[in-house]
Amino acid sequence: MKNVDRWQLPDGVEEVLPAQAAAAERLRRQVLDLYRSWGYQLVIPPLVEFTESLLIGLGADLDLLTFKMTDQLSGRTLGLRADITPQVARIDAHSLAESGVTRLCYAGSILHTRPKTATGSRSPIQLGAELYGDSSLAADVEIIRLMLATLETAGLDDITLDLGHVGVYGAVLAAADLDAEHEATVFDALQRKSLPDLELALADVDAETRRLLISLVDLHGDESVLTRARELLAEQVPEALAGIDALQDVAADIRRQRPDIALYFDLTELRGYHYHTGMVFAAYVPGHGQALANGGRYNDVGKVFGRARPATGFATDLKALMALLPAEVSTNNAISMPDIDDPDLQARVDELRAAGEIVINCLSAEPDSRCDRHLVEHEGEWLVQPLNTTDHVTS
Amino acid sequence: MKNVDRWQLPDGVEEVLPAQAAAAERLRRQVLDLYRSWGYQLVIPPLVEFTESLLIGLGADLDLLTFKMTDQLSGRTLGLRADITPQVARIDAHSLAESGVTRLCYAGSILHTRPKTATGSRSPIQLGAELYGDSSLAADVEIIRLMLATLETAGLDDITLDLGHVGVYGAVLAAADLDAEHEATVFDALQRKSLPDLELALADVDAETRRLLISLVDLHGDESVLTRARELLAEQVPEALAGIDALQDVAADIRRQRPDIALYFDLTELRGYHYHTGMVFAAYVPGHGQALANGGRYNDVGKVFGRARPATGFATDLKALMALLPAEVSTNNAISMPDIDDPDLQARVDELRAAGEIVINCLSAEPDSRCDRHLVEHEGEWLVQPLNTTDHVTS
Repeated sequence: MKNVDRWQLPDGVEEVLPAQAAAAERLRRQVLDLYRSWGYQLVIPPLVEFTESLLIGLGADLDLLTFKMTDQLSGRTLGLRADITPQVARIDAHSLAESGVTRLCYAGSILHTRPKTATGSRSPIQLGAELYGDSSLAADVEIIRLMLATLETAGLDDITLDLGHVGVYGAVLAAADLDAEHEATVFDALQRKSLPDLELALADVDAETRRLLISLVDLHGDESVLTRARELLAEQVPEALAGIDALQDVAADIRRQRPDIALYFDLTELRGYHYHTGMVFAAYVPGHGQALANGGRYNDVGKVFGRARPATGFATDLKALMALLPAEVSTNNAISMPDIDDPDLQARVDELRAAGEIVINCLSAEPDSRCDRHLVEHEGEWLVQPLNTTDHVTS
Repeated sequence: MKNVDRWQLPDGVEEVLPAQAAAAERLRRQVLDLYRSWGYQLVIPPLVEFTESLLIGLGADLDLLTFKMTDQLSGRTLGLRADITPQVARIDAHSLAESGVTRLCYAGSILHTRPKTATGSRSPIQLGAELYGDSSLAADVEIIRLMLATLETAGLDDITLDLGHVGVYGAVLAAADLDAEHEATVFDALQRKSLPDLELALADVDAETRRLLISLVDLHGDESVLTRARELLAEQVPEALAGIDALQDVAADIRRQRPDIALYFDLTELRGYHYHTGMVFAAYVPGHGQALANGGRYNDVGKVFGRARPATGFATDLKALMALLPAEVSTNNAISMPDIDDPDLQARVDELRAAGEIVINCLSAEPDSRCDRHLVEHEGEWLVQPLNTTDHVTS
């Protein structure tokens, strides 16, 4: 590798430069302040943990997404976190071990061995909130509303909320009683909403089961989906009705509180099917194909740490939110100060900085290019004057 | 590994729980606001880069401290950053490539394969600032003052500033003209300020060189050190005088501007000797053996990225600063709200949250234990009332 190439960053691994970094920091603070004001307490889990602590069944692909390293001190395998959720679950279950409801939030860098989507980042800054110890739909609604408030804090509107419930598919699948191989092919075809593949997968299955599973493919769209699902499943799979009821209740709550949010229902939205245990939700905005935030209920998390707890939560990516922020017009708004030893000057500078001004020490002949004003002594007082009009004292 | 142990964290890898995390976030913001107000622009470099980008000669031990992983996309070796300084140097040299002075700052998690000290952390949160493009002592003074201001922002006083200059030892070493093996043993003995080891290392060296090198061991203490060094070296190693002059100038500046800071001079402070090129500095507080912040000049960094630049900067660890913060008395100061659908209640809650209050949705019969007040409807208005005195409306 030639020296001249040493600045190259790995694919999907981005740096954030000043203009964007300032905006990212502002948004990070606004979102963490939002979480704080709702009672969610910040935790800062470490970058790495033993893989046993990180890979606790939250997503089958998490293992593949996680970079592994050998710990020189213990000889054991460390994972570089690919998701912060398992860490927060550990903190709730073991480190805090509170009874009752625990609300936690976090903001931190994660890393993936490969991008989740073709154009995706491998180095998101994950922001999220989790609510432990309450299994009610009210907790899911609180988390969904906080997820929506997060996107609004980032200045996004025209949000579509995608709602699903893994219990519906789970009940249908249990009723169909397929073998493991069939189950996997059906799951795959449903995920891609591919009718031909689904028909192929179900070729040697009895007609009624086939009809039931195929009908699931179309169960996405507006609230009429719930009515159709209820009609379809009421007799054959009554166990699926609890999930439909839950969706209806949550939708009614959200609709009442947030009539501005478009709702979309998808009973084959099976993201995280293998670890979610109830409601699943995601938020979309126009022109952005990927969900900007998503989450769901994952009860009994924490069991591997010795304490099973009901849990619901969501996560988003600060970098993805930033990419949708309106472009900022960069303006020069700093004040140049001469690099001289003068207690009066220093006192004035301290005052300006404390008031939020940027005051830059002028080390060379020219003030920093970000300066539009400078400090000038006039009759024993240090005044802030515009640059380029130094012949006239203006303040 | 039994499930019951899965919560264990690796040695030297810490999590930060709510009470401390809130304090850490506050301090992080205060310090980044300080840097911003001095004109230092935030950058957010990624967690990993190719090792060629991270290991650019800034510290011989950095390679050993850096976790390595194979990048599945490129087949090349990635390093998990053990220091953010090389990343910021790359950003200055290549990503920004500005002419003139560039001031940058950062805050981020780093990881070390092993702790730097016996009781040290392997997972610091590194905060720092770098000034590129100016080789003057004024730039070093600005960085030293910003380092001191960082510690003061963390509420620390009684600070001792340790000043050194690698040029003094460098000149003596050049004059002594030792072979590489001798040089390494002498360096090691001087680092440990071990006179017997130094005498042993110099046993077969001519008397004058021996006398000169041995006299260095005592060159630490108050400003009289500089006078002694000048007397000792003026005739035999006049090349060393430039470093002593620089120390005297910087010390005079700091003393004038910050008479409250205790100064300590150490001409055998050789931390980073192999990459520092001028002033080196560190800040100590009583009762804490390790430097809380340190830095120095490292000119020509960025050369490997195609653009050599003068540079000076410092870094500190947010977790180390936090450990010295006065313990906070945790108080219950949240407001409980009933989980009901009422637009007036919601409007009141939005208002309270926007004003900085924590308002927690009450999902169960009992309000969250952090609540000292709750929202109660009284004659059509939602009022904040103390908990436990619900019989009397107080606001």
